[in-house]
Amino acid sequence: MLTAFVRDGTVEHPAVFEVFARRLPEGRRFGVVAGLGRLRELLADFRFTAEEVAWLRARDVVDDATARWLAGFRFTGDVDAYPEGELYFPGSPVLTVRGTLGECVMLETLVLSVLNHDSAVAGAAARMVLAAGDRPLVEMGSRRTHEDAAVAAARAAYLAGFASTSNLAAGLRYGVPTVGTAAHAFTLAHATERDAFASQVAVQGKDTTLLVDTYDVAEGIRTAVEVAGPGLGAVRIDSGDLAETASAARALLDELGARETRIIATSDLDEFVITALADAPIDGYGVGTRLVTGSGHPTAGMVYKLVAVGSSPGGPLRPVAKKSHDKVSVGGAKTAWRRAVDGVLAAEWYRVDGREEPDARPVQVPVVRGGAVVHAPTLEEVRATCRAALAGLPPGARTVAAGPAYLTAGLEGEPS
Amino acid sequence: MLTAFVRDGTVEHPAVFEVFARRLPEGRRFGVVAGLGRLRELLADFRFTAEEVAWLRARDVVDDATARWLAGFRFTGDVDAYPEGELYFPGSPVLTVRGTLGECVMLETLVLSVLNHDSAVAGAAARMVLAAGDRPLVEMGSRRTHEDAAVAAARAAYLAGFASTSNLAAGLRYGVPTVGTAAHAFTLAHATERDAFASQVAVQGKDTTLLVDTYDVAEGIRTAVEVAGPGLGAVRIDSGDLAETASAARALLDELGARETRIIATSDLDEFVITALADAPIDGYGVGTRLVTGSGHPTAGMVYKLVAVGSSPGGPLRPVAKKSHDKVSVGGAKTAWRRAVDGVLAAEWYRVDGREEPDARPVQVPVVRGGAVVHAPTLEEVRATCRAALAGLPPGARTVAAGPAYLTAGLEGEPS
Repeated sequence: MLTAFVRDGTVEHPAVFEVFARRLPEGRRFGVVAGLGRLRELLADFRFTAEEVAWLRARDVVDDATARWLAGFRFTGDVDAYPEGELYFPGSPVLTVRGTLGECVMLETLVLSVLNHDSAVAGAAARMVLAAGDRPLVEMGSRRTHEDAAVAAARAAYLAGFASTSNLAAGLRYGVPTVGTAAHAFTLAHATERDAFASQVAVQGKDTTLLVDTYDVAEGIRTAVEVAGPGLGAVRIDSGDLAETASAARALLDELGARETRIIATSDLDEFVITALADAPIDGYGVGTRLVTGSGHPTAGMVYKLVAVGSSPGGPLRPVAKKSHDKVSVGGAKTAWRRAVDGVLAAEWYRVDGREEPDARPVQVPVVRGGAVVHAPTLEEVRATCRAALAGLPPGARTVAAGPAYLTAGLEGEPS
Repeated sequence: MLTAFVRDGTVEHPAVFEVFARRLPEGRRFGVVAGLGRLRELLADFRFTAEEVAWLRARDVVDDATARWLAGFRFTGDVDAYPEGELYFPGSPVLTVRGTLGECVMLETLVLSVLNHDSAVAGAAARMVLAAGDRPLVEMGSRRTHEDAAVAAARAAYLAGFASTSNLAAGLRYGVPTVGTAAHAFTLAHATERDAFASQVAVQGKDTTLLVDTYDVAEGIRTAVEVAGPGLGAVRIDSGDLAETASAARALLDELGARETRIIATSDLDEFVITALADAPIDGYGVGTRLVTGSGHPTAGMVYKLVAVGSSPGGPLRPVAKKSHDKVSVGGAKTAWRRAVDGVLAAEWYRVDGREEPDARPVQVPVVRGGAVVHAPTLEEVRATCRAALAGLPPGARTVAAGPAYLTAGLEGEPS
């Protein structure tokens, strides 16, 4: 494709590509934009090495002229996007890339991979956060996904409201708060459960979380309180009927005088199980598999489509759109607007004429100008954006109950 | 956990950990072991940098002694595993790690991340390969998953029988055959569909694949044959009712004299859609989203469990197993055996006494000895292993129809 663009000269024609999702995953009321912070860093480093170009040329993937073009490639265009942590809906123009056709085309896979993965995790995480209410959530899913995806997933979960992660690389790379966990292997590796607890308390102090279900939960709790005293920080339960086990654990802890000892539940949790556990005496959750796999929807389904293109270098743009069958798109570069009523998000729409909307808020922000990053919020700021965005939904859209997308972004003036 | 191990001395005790899946994804008859080739490379490079150790120490994640231990860490133990490309079933001891407790514990997340991701993709890919029969499959899912997971997914798909990938990094890094695709943007970027096809044919020759559904499929096919001649390599259809559209496309191509022009179908394919398209005049498939997300099961559900541990450095091992509730495991290091009848896999079981089985085939192979890799098949050899393994299943287990696991690996002498 690139070789043909280089050969016929269109490679230098101006173009606009947009990222959007045609629909949300089944039953979801909203999506969460995530990945922009990672994309920013990846974009800054996006070059082709001499080895890569030579390999592509040797295999005739590209011709000589295209190999030279790739060797000199760096992105020099503009990017506008919904801020990371913001919500999106079907049709929302989440990210817009402007540049030459060649450089815009180069970005497709990188942009979509990052946004589709991170937004899938953040969307699931936000629902778990809503389900958990005041109870903190720990991300513990590293072992259930690709080793690098795991680090990105920990970041996405945190920006969507998780309290911490067990992934230390996410702590080092992104500043996500980290927590340790003890595995069943830790208990099994010692001669007795008591030895294991004593060893952990000796290192961590009594304000630690002891995993009490390796053998028998009640026995484990008694041993834990004997070893750490009634000031023990927390116990973790990772098997069985969590509601029932937590209730029995709470009663036993109270009986033993460990009234302040928290109960942490793990074991195949997701937003639905967390909702069902709302009345159980649980103080925090650890979530793994279902978080890093997007709770049934491991990819956000965003696409990257050409919406406008010129016929000569620097020439004017004409709107374009695929028209066949089931995949109809709206051509033209879009600006997105939102209106809130009494602090509650009420409508989102876009315009293709670039005009301002006097009584609405623009959603997109400039992210890259002439290849240089101009928007780099901290992860804490992104987290605040997400928190505010979720708070701006009406209560009915802030539950995990299945329903249609709360909004659909359509062309201004058209019913949505 | 590691700090406690270092502090109480268990860090140097001998240990055996095993990887296995308690169950297969719902409806799956078998799993495919994948990731070993990647794991081998990652293991060889698995060290902690001074920066990483300093960060862990500064945040008090580890104490001084543990920081020193980490700085000197490299894996010096042994790994045995099912060969990559081999099948696995519930209970199969897919991978065994022997070493000190400390070094074994360090490997957990890396081993599980790689195997759970790659095996999930390979398991889905193998079913698509069985569904497609003689029709080649192209992996095209890079944009639907994390940017690095995408490269691993392309490798996993290839070892399970896919013909090629659109991920060039997988070509460069692993030697997976690569193919290019033209997007709708390629057509839209030109003034007319005819211009776009002419540009592509000028670069690729007539033996290329033209995407014919940007505007109108019939019109697109007529234009494609006019531009490339009846010797056009293939047309690609990416929308609509694929069976119906392919039939109409075949009739039109034949009418235009393009009898040898192939039809490639893409658009949300998975093993079930591919099965449903068996009678359609389609010559090859491109699969994206559903492949890289494991066709509904994005993680293989493998766990890493301590099965034996010693009480002193170099001391004898005792079998251990978690016993509470719903997660019961069998203690002791396992050797796995298989029996085939008339070339068809008939049984798999394991022993915990290390004895040989005279009339059976051992499944595990030594992969690492004393930290050094001793088993490094090429990706083509892995692909051959998978092909042979699939051929060894009875026809009833080689379909995509839902059913229970074809086998369950249990303790020798116990009913499975």
